[in-house]
Amino acid sequence: MSRTPLPFDPSGIQLDRRQGLSRQLYQALRERILGGQLGSLVRLPATRDLAEALGVSRNTVVRAYDQLYAEGYLQGRIGDGTYVAELATKARSKASHPPVKPSAPAQSNLLQRLQTEYLPPPRLDAPRAFRVGIPAFDLFPFETWARLQANFWRHPPMASLGYADAAGDPQLRELIAAYLRNSRGLVCDPGQVIITSGAQQAISLCAQMLVNVGDGVAVENPGYRAAGKAFALAGAQLHGVAVDEEGFDTRQLAGLKDCRLAYVTPSHQYPTGVTLSLPRRLQLLEWAAREQGWIVEDDYDGEYRYRGTPLSPLAALDQHGRVLYVGTFSKIAFPGLRLGYLVVPPTLTEAFSQVRALGVRHSEIGTQAVMAEFIAAGHFQRHIRRMRRAAQARRDALLNGWPAAVPGCQPLPVVDAGLHLSVRVASRARELELVQKAAAVGVELNALSDYWLPDSPGSADDRAGLVLGFAGVSEDHIAKALTALKKAWG
Amino acid sequence: MSRTPLPFDPSGIQLDRRQGLSRQLYQALRERILGGQLGSLVRLPATRDLAEALGVSRNTVVRAYDQLYAEGYLQGRIGDGTYVAELATKARSKASHPPVKPSAPAQSNLLQRLQTEYLPPPRLDAPRAFRVGIPAFDLFPFETWARLQANFWRHPPMASLGYADAAGDPQLRELIAAYLRNSRGLVCDPGQVIITSGAQQAISLCAQMLVNVGDGVAVENPGYRAAGKAFALAGAQLHGVAVDEEGFDTRQLAGLKDCRLAYVTPSHQYPTGVTLSLPRRLQLLEWAAREQGWIVEDDYDGEYRYRGTPLSPLAALDQHGRVLYVGTFSKIAFPGLRLGYLVVPPTLTEAFSQVRALGVRHSEIGTQAVMAEFIAAGHFQRHIRRMRRAAQARRDALLNGWPAAVPGCQPLPVVDAGLHLSVRVASRARELELVQKAAAVGVELNALSDYWLPDSPGSADDRAGLVLGFAGVSEDHIAKALTALKKAWG
Repeated sequence: MSRTPLPFDPSGIQLDRRQGLSRQLYQALRERILGGQLGSLVRLPATRDLAEALGVSRNTVVRAYDQLYAEGYLQGRIGDGTYVAELATKARSKASHPPVKPSAPAQSNLLQRLQTEYLPPPRLDAPRAFRVGIPAFDLFPFETWARLQANFWRHPPMASLGYADAAGDPQLRELIAAYLRNSRGLVCDPGQVIITSGAQQAISLCAQMLVNVGDGVAVENPGYRAAGKAFALAGAQLHGVAVDEEGFDTRQLAGLKDCRLAYVTPSHQYPTGVTLSLPRRLQLLEWAAREQGWIVEDDYDGEYRYRGTPLSPLAALDQHGRVLYVGTFSKIAFPGLRLGYLVVPPTLTEAFSQVRALGVRHSEIGTQAVMAEFIAAGHFQRHIRRMRRAAQARRDALLNGWPAAVPGCQPLPVVDAGLHLSVRVASRARELELVQKAAAVGVELNALSDYWLPDSPGSADDRAGLVLGFAGVSEDHIAKALTALKKAWG
Repeated sequence: MSRTPLPFDPSGIQLDRRQGLSRQLYQALRERILGGQLGSLVRLPATRDLAEALGVSRNTVVRAYDQLYAEGYLQGRIGDGTYVAELATKARSKASHPPVKPSAPAQSNLLQRLQTEYLPPPRLDAPRAFRVGIPAFDLFPFETWARLQANFWRHPPMASLGYADAAGDPQLRELIAAYLRNSRGLVCDPGQVIITSGAQQAISLCAQMLVNVGDGVAVENPGYRAAGKAFALAGAQLHGVAVDEEGFDTRQLAGLKDCRLAYVTPSHQYPTGVTLSLPRRLQLLEWAAREQGWIVEDDYDGEYRYRGTPLSPLAALDQHGRVLYVGTFSKIAFPGLRLGYLVVPPTLTEAFSQVRALGVRHSEIGTQAVMAEFIAAGHFQRHIRRMRRAAQARRDALLNGWPAAVPGCQPLPVVDAGLHLSVRVASRARELELVQKAAAVGVELNALSDYWLPDSPGSADDRAGLVLGFAGVSEDHIAKALTALKKAWG
């Protein structure tokens, strides 16, 4: 049988017989066309010949040719076989080695900023003592949540499955407004509530919305670095403001130029645990009104108060529409839910809704509807009480079991709020030693040094300390961790 | 009984007896302190006297005073009653009328851009003929989804409840990579897959990451305005590129200055329905390689092909790491799920992950885990087939039932892909008339005019047409809508 010689060496085509042969052949031929080994207008072998050369069925070759033909890599002449297409290869021969312009463009500004502003990867293992930022989510009523999820998804309202309100589920926003009114004395219209993907998105939206590149932003120092970095990523120049026993030192605001936004954690400063005093609150509000600036008030753990009365949030005192209040379900339910909210001044509600529409359209509908039902049915309020009791008991387990005297480390403060506490250590070297020895026995301690801005004043020793989350694991686990610590620190 | 005169007129305090009285009294007093009617160091009436004046229990007054005291509005002198605090009122008197700086700051750049770049509000009612952008989600197996949700939430892995991988659930990313390999011939590492809140967030992330303010971005014209607006919001200058029968006209790229990013919908152009030809694909890739630019390839409805073989996505042909591929579950499941993904070049995976970490931390864990299970158990592939059949049947119902001749409107094209079709209309006036008469009988038609950039070339009449989504409702509903249309258009 006479055979046309093949226009390429078929022995280079290695086909794996456990997978789709025609797709592999298609890919091998496409690669050769794009790479130039099979040049423009080269005639391909008859399907029968190539099938024989490769030891595959003719059908396999026909399917591969069909695909290449359909995609425009091949062209046929009636009665005259199949050729590599002309246009494709013209473009291809340039495409495979395109001349790069001499002035290679710089990276985008955001990519450049990302080289310094990013978060360390999260810890992906199960909670352990003394991780910060997580509540007692082992106590979450998952059975109830599962039931509510199933109820919602069995018969979801058809109108809710398409594109929805960018600001969030209207019922959930009403319930949040009512909750804030009752629990924080914060009176707002449900229209001011914008549902977000956790507090981080709330903060990040504020950064995008309110900060121009080069603007100054005042942040607590030490403070919540994930917030600072979100502002820095938007192009802000961060100004660290000291935190003393009254909280964020508003007196330092006067010295900051071009600074019209302050990010604060008034109810329980992160990470020091201080509460912002009333005079400072009023001074901060006055500053924002005078500068026509903004205050982003992050009330991340306002539900946790073990003694005394909480102060009104800045948002409740604000008479000039300058406060954006950040709330989250992460510390009552769990962070993986990614459900939080913003309460913004009425002048900004439309803009925030629009920015969310262009950014994400809206949040997933099931989580919002199920949380609304969880609140409306009373589970949420019950769970807050359960979580508060648990966090307090876990705090007590930490305070009672902590070693009597840790050299170089101050005694633990009796915190009356929140899910963590922090304590000063005499030197950076000692801080590292305590953290590393703890890590060696499986106990997570966080260095206070990590919470400061890079260009903070004072010596490294001035910034040393420990931050301990006490709510994430049971008293039992805390006791075991403390026993391990005592041994490790000897 | 002798009574100290009250330092303020209690008749102004209106208490609503159906609600918490002490909270109302607290708020009324706080308002007067902050407003200056109760000045610094003014002595408050004894609780007994105020209770009597207001006709409430003494306890109510005690609780209100306690709260004000705890928050720092009041101060006590032992044996000498309760006074309005000094510090607070000092700050207050300025705060209530703060002098605004003469140079009132301008709005942020983003707020300014939002005045023109925003999406019209979504339609919040149940799907109707001929809404675009929605698939046959009446066919979604909600019972299965509900069961998988309940299964997940009953015993969620504890390690997944805290903060998770910013790029998304690792199992879901692996399944998406395998799906793209099998269904699109797009071979990628699961590490290149970034889970997003729908296609919109994928596009918006590309805009934030890759565009500097003032950069040119090439978009199809007519095109997907929600994408164009996301780029414009990031500060891009949009350049509309014409769409002909081969799709996005790559020849126009040469004339665009400072333009290094192109957003395209190659598999089924939105809204015209054209497929980008292979030569154009290769030219576009060549352009991106030469300019070291980026191509954002939105494959929003690539699952829907009713005849012929789909072309390989640009991302599968890309040899220089310049294509970012956007996929979504909105058109197979439903938009309200807000689940989509990006496949980014390996050089960008870390940066996208970091930007998501600072922007939202990560996506909600339940939806991701349930979708992974939905795919792994084979429901997803089955559902794609079901959806494709349904969309094709609904397309046929539209094509078969459409009026034989609509004056001023071209005949409907037989589209072989996607969930919508578009047709030209002779003039803008006729387009409006057709849309309005349809709306009057409850039928949704979309004006093609709305899909063009504001500064498009040609006359308004050149841009007129109709865009019809055919997949959102059943054949029965489509038939009814067509009957109504015929009557309305007479």
